[in-house]
Amino acid sequence: MSPATKGKVLLVLYKGGDHARQVKQLLGCLENELGIRDFIEKNGYELVSTDSKDPIGESEVDEHLKDAEIIITTPFFPAYITKERLAKAPKLKMCVTAGVGSDHIDLNAANEHKITVTEVTGSNVVSVSEHAVMTILDLVRNFVPAHEQAVSKGWDIAGAAKDSYDLEGKTVATVGAGRIGYRILERLVAFNPKKLYYYDYQDLPKDAIDKLNKASELFNGHGNIVERVENLEEMLGKSDVVTINAPLHEKTKGLFNKDLISKMKDGAWLVNTARGAICVAEDVAEALESGKLRGYGGDVWNVQPAPDNHPWRTMRNKFGGGNAMTPHISGTSLDAQARYSAGVQSILESYFSGKHDYRQQDVIVIDGDYATKSYGERHKMK
Amino acid sequence: MSPATKGKVLLVLYKGGDHARQVKQLLGCLENELGIRDFIEKNGYELVSTDSKDPIGESEVDEHLKDAEIIITTPFFPAYITKERLAKAPKLKMCVTAGVGSDHIDLNAANEHKITVTEVTGSNVVSVSEHAVMTILDLVRNFVPAHEQAVSKGWDIAGAAKDSYDLEGKTVATVGAGRIGYRILERLVAFNPKKLYYYDYQDLPKDAIDKLNKASELFNGHGNIVERVENLEEMLGKSDVVTINAPLHEKTKGLFNKDLISKMKDGAWLVNTARGAICVAEDVAEALESGKLRGYGGDVWNVQPAPDNHPWRTMRNKFGGGNAMTPHISGTSLDAQARYSAGVQSILESYFSGKHDYRQQDVIVIDGDYATKSYGERHKMK
Repeated sequence: MSPATKGKVLLVLYKGGDHARQVKQLLGCLENELGIRDFIEKNGYELVSTDSKDPIGESEVDEHLKDAEIIITTPFFPAYITKERLAKAPKLKMCVTAGVGSDHIDLNAANEHKITVTEVTGSNVVSVSEHAVMTILDLVRNFVPAHEQAVSKGWDIAGAAKDSYDLEGKTVATVGAGRIGYRILERLVAFNPKKLYYYDYQDLPKDAIDKLNKASELFNGHGNIVERVENLEEMLGKSDVVTINAPLHEKTKGLFNKDLISKMKDGAWLVNTARGAICVAEDVAEALESGKLRGYGGDVWNVQPAPDNHPWRTMRNKFGGGNAMTPHISGTSLDAQARYSAGVQSILESYFSGKHDYRQQDVIVIDGDYATKSYGERHKMK
Repeated sequence: MSPATKGKVLLVLYKGGDHARQVKQLLGCLENELGIRDFIEKNGYELVSTDSKDPIGESEVDEHLKDAEIIITTPFFPAYITKERLAKAPKLKMCVTAGVGSDHIDLNAANEHKITVTEVTGSNVVSVSEHAVMTILDLVRNFVPAHEQAVSKGWDIAGAAKDSYDLEGKTVATVGAGRIGYRILERLVAFNPKKLYYYDYQDLPKDAIDKLNKASELFNGHGNIVERVENLEEMLGKSDVVTINAPLHEKTKGLFNKDLISKMKDGAWLVNTARGAICVAEDVAEALESGKLRGYGGDVWNVQPAPDNHPWRTMRNKFGGGNAMTPHISGTSLDAQARYSAGVQSILESYFSGKHDYRQQDVIVIDGDYATKSYGERHKMK
């Protein structure tokens, strides 16, 4: 660390390369540094940016953690902030997630070291909910095989139509009805689903439920569109489409394994834009290939970057479709990048000022304890 | 024609092959004959099914039109019912479109010959509006390049994110606000667009506008989401996303040519699930390649089946994406097939009974004149 500065801010981002030069709004890559270099330097801090995060123990992240005061990481290209790394970061005061979802950080260890963990809550909720609705439509309507046909050769309508359905009249369920899960429900009402179910540790607020029911009254001519189901397996057993919108923690890790998937309706569609590790990768691939699942899609992977031989790259249903995976981009649209870059700057302002007057919803752990309900209430999941 | 029958019904459908055997709900293919063979034969008519429709003058369609009383065709695999063909069909009384959109039939010639043209109005409106919203999301969020990356190798988030946006906050416009265009607007409100515009020859009914504004009040905290624009070019100049939902006729054919596209916002997305010939294929491809359009998608082509060298198969934007084409499947989901098969049977029941008490909205031309406003009011378009 340069002796002239107050402290070191370490920023871990993926390399943008040519993309960064082509598109200036691509703030979330190494070259464009969230657009916050000037801001940090004006505050007397040093900024070190890197994409060298692996292997743990031998990367530039490890080198700089020795004297960094703040580390900024993302869920899209996560530097895993493990117990071991935290033990070797004596000056570290805060981990900032540029985006939403801090499960790549060992939160218990952060608590032990009294390291604050913050994220830019809300910066990606719209982006992810849009991605989830898009993925549902892509799977239900069988977009991918149809598109592949369109951009290659031939004209085989039956081959695409035989696995194409309408979303209308289908039962859609969300596992988790927080900021993202609820926004997905909002966006689904006008599609006239048979029913919208949600599974969560608490009821949605009454006004949130009223909103969905009133919208359904407007669009579908009937209210009572949404219903909480307290038993997860029961909900899965009656849902055509299931979308996962829960944080990753001990109780959700591997939740969708072979056993739980077997409780789903035959030929259901499963969408996961939350965290890849909530599903057991091999079990999902097997369910798709056996026909238990008609489709699986989403943008989160249990290992990121996903290895070239990850089963979710190659899995298909019996008709050669049913795969709507993308790399982890849902929360990193250019609109979202503008939001989380601004959000990181706002968190740093609060830190640099010494006031630590963060937006309450941005604080995950602070002063050695969990600050948010979705992580804190984890024991009630399942 | 077998002398023992009252008349001949000619049914033109695409061949389903293995797909037809695998999926019984694939009613709209040659092998499954809309599930109406028994019904037709019980009514004393002969049913002839074929997929031989080209070349005009030399196909089985031409052979059987010599003595057919009814011909049933689809927009997905259109047998073009030209003036010349109608002139050689002396016994023809009715053309039924299994689906929606009868522009593959020369309606003026049908009027001259006093041939009734009917279609199953409403059978595909939900399917097509879902397809349009899906295509909008796929383009705006840059799904295709992201998915191609996910199912091949590598992990280049920046390469996918650099052309990925949120639908929220965008201005979306529909050219045509009939049954499909309006349903698209309904499905877009919860995405919190900046504004929804429509261009049509008449105002939407007040209660339809109220519905959209009330839903926006619920979801977005403000009403006044939707607005009619009387000048098409003006609307295009202020819209990020344009979706085409108008019938094909003299005034809409080739409407989106180089000149009109030049009036659109730079980098806009254009979605066409109406009829391919409303756009000039080469002009669209050129606009995508030049960057004028950021994306183009939809499932309708100016020639169907699209030839292997159709420019819409190979066109891409400068980043290698921006193409969300599918073959013409939006109206032929399995749910839609069930609806239009039932609808065709209902039209035939009405015909066989001699009552001709068709649903008003199903009749396109009858007794030598246009029956529907969307075709009849065509002179008011543009």
